[in-house]
Amino acid sequence: METALIVGAGSGLSASLARLLAGENFRVALAARNPDKLSSLQALALRCDATDAAQVEDTFAAVEKMWGVPDLVVYNASFRTRGPFTELKHDDVRKTLEVSAFAGFLVAQAAAKRMLPRGSGAIFFTGASASVKGYAQSAPFAMGKFALRGLAQSLARELSPKNIHVAHFVIDGGIRAGGDSRAAERGEDGMLLPEEIARSYLQVYRQHRSAWSWELELRPWLEKF
Amino acid sequence: METALIVGAGSGLSASLARLLAGENFRVALAARNPDKLSSLQALALRCDATDAAQVEDTFAAVEKMWGVPDLVVYNASFRTRGPFTELKHDDVRKTLEVSAFAGFLVAQAAAKRMLPRGSGAIFFTGASASVKGYAQSAPFAMGKFALRGLAQSLARELSPKNIHVAHFVIDGGIRAGGDSRAAERGEDGMLLPEEIARSYLQVYRQHRSAWSWELELRPWLEKF
Amino acid sequence: METALIVGAGSGLSASLARLLAGENFRVALAARNPDKLSSLQALALRCDATDAAQVEDTFAAVEKMWGVPDLVVYNASFRTRGPFTELKHDDVRKTLEVSAFAGFLVAQAAAKRMLPRGSGAIFFTGASASVKGYAQSAPFAMGKFALRGLAQSLARELSPKNIHVAHFVIDGGIRAGGDSRAAERGEDGMLLPEEIARSYLQVYRQHRSAWSWELELRPWLEKF
Amino acid sequence: METALIVGAGSGLSASLARLLAGENFRVALAARNPDKLSSLQALALRCDATDAAQVEDTFAAVEKMWGVPDLVVYNASFRTRGPFTELKHDDVRKTLEVSAFAGFLVAQAAAKRMLPRGSGAIFFTGASASVKGYAQSAPFAMGKFALRGLAQSLARELSPKNIHVAHFVIDGGIRAGGDSRAAERGEDGMLLPEEIARSYLQVYRQHRSAWSWELELRPWLEKF
Repeated sequence: METALIVGAGSGLSASLARLLAGENFRVALAARNPDKLSSLQALALRCDATDAAQVEDTFAAVEKMWGVPDLVVYNASFRTRGPFTELKHDDVRKTLEVSAFAGFLVAQAAAKRMLPRGSGAIFFTGASASVKGYAQSAPFAMGKFALRGLAQSLARELSPKNIHVAHFVIDGGIRAGGDSRAAERGEDGMLLPEEIARSYLQVYRQHRSAWSWELELRPWLEKF
Repeated sequence: METALIVGAGSGLSASLARLLAGENFRVALAARNPDKLSSLQALALRCDATDAAQVEDTFAAVEKMWGVPDLVVYNASFRTRGPFTELKHDDVRKTLEVSAFAGFLVAQAAAKRMLPRGSGAIFFTGASASVKGYAQSAPFAMGKFALRGLAQSLARELSPKNIHVAHFVIDGGIRAGGDSRAAERGEDGMLLPEEIARSYLQVYRQHRSAWSWELELRPWLEKF
Repeated sequence: METALIVGAGSGLSASLARLLAGENFRVALAARNPDKLSSLQALALRCDATDAAQVEDTFAAVEKMWGVPDLVVYNASFRTRGPFTELKHDDVRKTLEVSAFAGFLVAQAAAKRMLPRGSGAIFFTGASASVKGYAQSAPFAMGKFALRGLAQSLARELSPKNIHVAHFVIDGGIRAGGDSRAAERGEDGMLLPEEIARSYLQVYRQHRSAWSWELELRPWLEKF
Repeated sequence: METALIVGAGSGLSASLARLLAGENFRVALAARNPDKLSSLQALALRCDATDAAQVEDTFAAVEKMWGVPDLVVYNASFRTRGPFTELKHDDVRKTLEVSAFAGFLVAQAAAKRMLPRGSGAIFFTGASASVKGYAQSAPFAMGKFALRGLAQSLARELSPKNIHVAHFVIDGGIRAGGDSRAAERGEDGMLLPEEIARSYLQVYRQHRSAWSWELELRPWLEKF
């Protein structure tokens, strides 16, 4: 039986991924700052502020104790502040970097420490349009998401030859959530269905190591790019 | 039942893709300049020089007559010449552009003409490391493969909103073939297994249109990049 | 005294570049299919269809005979066809590849053959927005311009260590021409002034080889990107 | 008379830039954590830890009081830690992000606040190979430099149409410093001369706004890429 640890709530994506993986017979742990809303999922819900190294360590230790070293770790958290550049609050910008990038480092390092001795595993990161394009009035999110991509690319170069599959997903479009008023105006399938994103994560996870992807862009058919 | 048309022999990839698709209940046609070596596959083998518009048209007409408009068309042919820049032969350079890029246009246009009235379909292109990086002593292949990627990206923007899924695959590494002496020295799974590349093509084909990829890089875990 | 050969009319850019270089004491030759309109420039006007290898060779021979091997060669020609993908004419697409890419190869090879024995020189290519982004309804131009960029990048890798400076310029916006009705609506300096583009070409040419650029993007301050 | 403020010591680049700008009649202020080593330059030396918003504010206020709002602000500081991923120290990683990215944000915001009311200015950022490629054993530097590039790109989109020129320089190679033992083994001009980098900064600063670059790569002719 395979084990997955998903960190961050991720706009509904984590829940969809947890459900899909559970259906594939994974044992799934889901760690978030506020795990209460995760309780209905077929997953072990853990409380974790991923910007805090000790809490990240505790989370991995808890999963390891129950099920062993996870086979798949997904970093799926982010924070963003936006607005005219001169009005951005320093603390919000700092938090954007902390949550979107530094916490991703902490989670990846905790994962790699455990996977390397075993000699296998997968570490996935969720990116956004801002991972590859810095938009006006959104410098902090670009900073955080570019940084996370730099982390993922560096890790892909360092860890792939050690049999750890590192991948970065560029989610280029809005993720559909229940009651999202934008869904209708964007047209049929005009927003990403989280269960379909999850399906691509699983397929990349299932790739044979002779043909790994380190990055995948996903966008709705109607999205401009 | 779905129908696929694969154009080009593609270093063993076309054969693997034909086999995989046949196993998934596709009707498969495989068109190449020399179709004799394709005869043992579970596929309709057609003779086609894809740089010749009339032959491309005939090939599509033959498939359409038997099975209707294909659901998936894969352009999988290329030609390359290489060497010190000043020693390159003009005719070889021209042929590199003709086979690697112009023929891809002809095939894509023949596909789009048929898919647009139906309102669905997928057109896939096989790229290489040279699609995104121009190597020394290999300018012509970079020209051809960059051009094919430009075609694919432009088509993704134009045809995706019309429900035609366009994707480009960057095969970054050597594809393993029977008797390839490089396989051993590159280490276990150090070359791409064509059947594993084929699996990723199928998964991208199966993507829901709310979360399409237009490009996918595939490389062996041991490959430098 | 330095010598420059500019190939192609290039939307007014070639004329501006010729003027700027002449003012810097270059001897300038300007080759185009229709050189009559170039007669008023301080440059030697030559007739050359750059898609024809013999004419390219003759052009270089003529310049060489008068002034020796050029120090700077600029490829500044392109052709484009556009429209709905299924309506594109094969001959126009072929011509787009021939003029925008293959002729660039011919010119670059003729230049490299002469510069390599001397051990110095510069070969510059003019790109466009389409060099790095494939737009809808413009697949052929994307093919041609992506290909030219692949050529330039490959040559930069191959020829830089032999003291030949290869550079590619991404002109991302409309170039202002006399009587262009779009100029007013785009706002002050909203279109690229060709003499300002030319100035950047000269600066890249003047770069010390310890700090060469192989690519430069230029766009108006008001341009969306 | 124009005014420049350079923040960070930047591997000798800041000193070269200060000298070049002084020679062009700029008034130059140079702010660094340890300004003592800057005392011999033709520049006002200021003490500033750019990760501290108050110190950044003080630095800008000091320059503004003496000379008015700077015309050009260059962010030229970075910090890096490297090594096997699992051995990286959290504090060093955090510091890499703080110095290489967050401080760049603070400096850029302090600059933009003053330049926007005046309606003109230029903000430049110094990047590295790691800005566009995440190397193995160097994830933190990739995170910091990718983030800085995201900041620069976002600002280019937001501030260019307000007449503020934002540019990012990818320094792809070692910068030559006195007594650097690597210089000889890399060959003649095999490392970037800081005064030549500085010259490209000045040229981009002098670009007319009808033809601005937002990014420039600079590398030695002998550098692999």
